[in-house]
Amino acid sequence: MNISMIFYILGWVLCTEAGAMLFPCIISVIYSETTGIYYLITLAVCLVTGLAIIFRKPKNTRFYAKEGFAIVALSWIVMSLIGAVPLCISGDIPSFMSALFETVSGFTTTGATNLTDIDALSRTSLFWRSETHWIGGMGVLVLILTLLPIAGGQNIQLMRAESPGPTVDKFKPRLRHTAMILYIIYFIMTVIEIMFLLFGGLSMFDAVTIAFSTAGTGGFTASNAGINAFHSSYIEIVLTVFMILFSVNFSFYYMMLARRFKDALKNSEVWTYLGIILTSGIIISLNIYKMFPSVKDTLRNAFFAVSSIISTTGFCTADFDKWPQLSRLILVLLMFFGACAGSTGGGIKISRIMVMVKSAVSEVRHTIHPKSVNAIKFSGKRVPTETVRNIKSFFIIEMIILAASALVVSLDNFDSTSTVTAVITCMQNVGPGLNAVGPTGNFASFSVLSKIVLIFDMLAGRLEIMPLLVLFSPSAWKKN
Amino acid sequence: MNISMIFYILGWVLCTEAGAMLFPCIISVIYSETTGIYYLITLAVCLVTGLAIIFRKPKNTRFYAKEGFAIVALSWIVMSLIGAVPLCISGDIPSFMSALFETVSGFTTTGATNLTDIDALSRTSLFWRSETHWIGGMGVLVLILTLLPIAGGQNIQLMRAESPGPTVDKFKPRLRHTAMILYIIYFIMTVIEIMFLLFGGLSMFDAVTIAFSTAGTGGFTASNAGINAFHSSYIEIVLTVFMILFSVNFSFYYMMLARRFKDALKNSEVWTYLGIILTSGIIISLNIYKMFPSVKDTLRNAFFAVSSIISTTGFCTADFDKWPQLSRLILVLLMFFGACAGSTGGGIKISRIMVMVKSAVSEVRHTIHPKSVNAIKFSGKRVPTETVRNIKSFFIIEMIILAASALVVSLDNFDSTSTVTAVITCMQNVGPGLNAVGPTGNFASFSVLSKIVLIFDMLAGRLEIMPLLVLFSPSAWKKN
Repeated sequence: MNISMIFYILGWVLCTEAGAMLFPCIISVIYSETTGIYYLITLAVCLVTGLAIIFRKPKNTRFYAKEGFAIVALSWIVMSLIGAVPLCISGDIPSFMSALFETVSGFTTTGATNLTDIDALSRTSLFWRSETHWIGGMGVLVLILTLLPIAGGQNIQLMRAESPGPTVDKFKPRLRHTAMILYIIYFIMTVIEIMFLLFGGLSMFDAVTIAFSTAGTGGFTASNAGINAFHSSYIEIVLTVFMILFSVNFSFYYMMLARRFKDALKNSEVWTYLGIILTSGIIISLNIYKMFPSVKDTLRNAFFAVSSIISTTGFCTADFDKWPQLSRLILVLLMFFGACAGSTGGGIKISRIMVMVKSAVSEVRHTIHPKSVNAIKFSGKRVPTETVRNIKSFFIIEMIILAASALVVSLDNFDSTSTVTAVITCMQNVGPGLNAVGPTGNFASFSVLSKIVLIFDMLAGRLEIMPLLVLFSPSAWKKN
Repeated sequence: MNISMIFYILGWVLCTEAGAMLFPCIISVIYSETTGIYYLITLAVCLVTGLAIIFRKPKNTRFYAKEGFAIVALSWIVMSLIGAVPLCISGDIPSFMSALFETVSGFTTTGATNLTDIDALSRTSLFWRSETHWIGGMGVLVLILTLLPIAGGQNIQLMRAESPGPTVDKFKPRLRHTAMILYIIYFIMTVIEIMFLLFGGLSMFDAVTIAFSTAGTGGFTASNAGINAFHSSYIEIVLTVFMILFSVNFSFYYMMLARRFKDALKNSEVWTYLGIILTSGIIISLNIYKMFPSVKDTLRNAFFAVSSIISTTGFCTADFDKWPQLSRLILVLLMFFGACAGSTGGGIKISRIMVMVKSAVSEVRHTIHPKSVNAIKFSGKRVPTETVRNIKSFFIIEMIILAASALVVSLDNFDSTSTVTAVITCMQNVGPGLNAVGPTGNFASFSVLSKIVLIFDMLAGRLEIMPLLVLFSPSAWKKN
């Protein structure tokens, strides 16, 4: 392990987080709150430490996949620990464990809250809470990559470890350039959403925090009433659209911008994703139409829930926990599916699901016609055997972690549905689950042990497991 | 497809089932019940049809893997349909769908019942119900293979398709001989269990039916009170031991008989299996000890439940549905694990779980040390890449079928835990689940649609999916 390089990049992470904390400080000034002082103190300590570390660039800047994974995992842990400090010392969330849960839930864009009274928080902390979604959505190391060429040609190791889904390699050449374009798309789309929300009558504060939350597919809102506080079907429709937009593979937009329309339209993941949303929305509408006064209400609530869950945002309008079993189960399945690879959304990712289904079909075909070729195609291209193997292993590791986590969380003795969906929703970075953690529930009553496990799951979900496993593998730290 | 060969083997299946129905007829005579007449009628029709079919052996006896799978799937469907007839026409289970559910649950050794009053059945039908477990445990085609050389050297296709787990190939040479030895071991162990049960004071009828149920790792009992009817901890301990014995890889016994003790003891699946039972038993004991008067009672009930669930037998003494969440969740996980490959038990099988975990570990190692060799070893031997790929695909297909089945069953609008565990317990051939299908519940209130899905799941679980998928693949039936 190139320890000095790991430290060096952590220094940059500290500086970036200090920069990010400037915004809650500004909010504090605008709303004349005193909370800002705690953010300023954290910012200062963070910045000084960070600058001290990056003052001297290590001589050996080479690193490999394992360092990439370790850096990403460490960065996210450090970022979360520091992000929780002002929430805690300001008294907004007095328990550090609760503050940490909230911050990890923010950065990983899970949006699961362990607060019972969100209204009690200062505007400063509410803003910071939502901002973590925006930062976490695209990834902090990707952001750093756009700003400076730290690690020469080895940046791909960082980007690969932090970006959701198995598709980053496409962008290999001119990586920094690509990262910058992705961030610009992200920024512009967020601004457009803010304008739409302002047009719907939201205050600037609400518009920005909700847009941060949508963009990162997070799910935090700035009040107990959540999205229902706005009493506006226009807002709900805008959010439905933007939740889908932000959970679509960003390479789709990239191709569109590059005028490679044909390539963009060939993206089978996007079409499958939209197909799943449409199908699930219609089935759920048929399943719940008796519970709503009109077809319009039914469709709006069904599609809002579907988009919110599959994009792993986790906003809630209707209490889908009270819907019939079929709808509840579809939503839990969509949590597993998750969004497109290369978006800000979580979950297993549609492309992985597609490859797994195709490989299952190919396995059956191979049994029937043993001489048939077993190749799997995706968007017209052959998927390498190693990628297929990786995807299957990813799924299996995910299931193992899910099962192990559920066992620990079950010590809290919630009912099975609450226990299992709590773990699923955290691991897939969605936010709400069913029963105790349903749309009207929260994670406040979980024990410290369960919260630690759920924090691990949220990070494992966001970073797609491998970085954390590498970080905690003793063999990764052994000298060769 | 070699259709005439498929028919020919189905003819043998009919004759074998006719032979099996002789036993309930004898029981009917012993207990002077009139029900036996319906079994005799079915037997006669079955035998005449079967003999008519096997009268002329097809010229072309060659068949391949796909025929093997299709024959096995068809045989099990035909066997179940016919097995349900006397239950239905005798009036013991007036609804044919309920009779079919019960028969499939019997042959697949699931042991899930959709009857609310088992005591109301005639002894004849109770015996038949338990006998289906014994036949299904080792497999009817394996039985036929021991009796006659139908298909020359191609028997392996049948045995591979019907036997649980991925290990049959080991026995390739002298297949018929091996099948016979396996059946002899099965028979002798059943007789030994009957003697132990008789010694515990059970009537001959109870001893035989319970032994059939244990041997096939089924779970049916001949009364509403089930195992608790015997009020005997001796019986519970005997059953715990035999449930484990019948769910251990039979090649272990085979090796022991062949005096290849070293090979037998090297079987890592058996040791892992026993280790899992021991660990789960201890954790559950610690979790439930407050609910029982003594340590002895705690251990007995915990280990009975663990052995019953992991062996996929499904006998119940305590109502584990009322145990704390951790214990409940461990039991659900054990349902997935299931027994050893090459035993009469169901589930994913310990060897598959082991290969998947090893492959996951190897994936992490490969990420850390990209130059490391990715080979997976099992019982000291390298597992071929194709086997690893098959196992992962098996798991993925299983998950897809589980999810799809749960969606259909959820239309009945039971709570999530009941819905999901009903599907899991049927698919893994266990028997009881949680909540509505817990130890005190049954499958009576499920709709016809759900029962059809669960019947499919039970067959898919017992035959390890592929035979059914091949049977229902149009491409398997196309002419080349």
